[in-house]
Amino acid sequence: MYGLIGRMIAAEGRREELMTILRDSATQRMPGCLSYVIARCVEHPDGIWVTEVWDTSESHKASLDLIAVQDAIARARPLIAGFDNRFETEPVGGIGL
Amino acid sequence: MYGLIGRMIAAEGRREELMTILRDSATQRMPGCLSYVIARCVEHPDGIWVTEVWDTSESHKASLDLIAVQDAIARARPLIAGFDNRFETEPVGGIGL
Repeated sequence: MYGLIGRMIAAEGRREELMTILRDSATQRMPGCLSYVIARCVEHPDGIWVTEVWDTSESHKASLDLIAVQDAIARARPLIAGFDNRFETEPVGGIGL
Repeated sequence: MYGLIGRMIAAEGRREELMTILRDSATQRMPGCLSYVIARCVEHPDGIWVTEVWDTSESHKASLDLIAVQDAIARARPLIAGFDNRFETEPVGGIGL
């Protein structure tokens, strides 16, 4: 499995709007996506954590070409101030996969 | 929902052993646990990411009193060198919850 853990920082005051776009895009069908969780960061008023698990890194890469995902990226971009944490992982198991 | 994203650092060379303990404990029944993913950190040879989603923070707290979890904590403790990242989150949705 392939995983990503990342925190993005929304433009000031735009976190809820940005999370809605992310959440809507995550309900689309994304082949190979086992888990995709969008969460407010408690310690940062503009922080959003996205934690992802895919069957392979290739499935993740391929998802970036999906029209629904490209559309979400285009709508999200103006609301993103930056990314300040990004970790690649190799998930081994657990609950909810 | 209530979430935790944390990285623990295994004692040198003990990562796989520690992950097995975590994974076994996560297959036990934990009321209110919606997602619990154990993953190797790619950038740190001893790093393990644990990402958790619970219905409420109370369910998470209550899980720490479960006998299976207490047993796992006791077995895991000697294999843990430390924790170097810990973020509380408020998950709002996504895939795999």
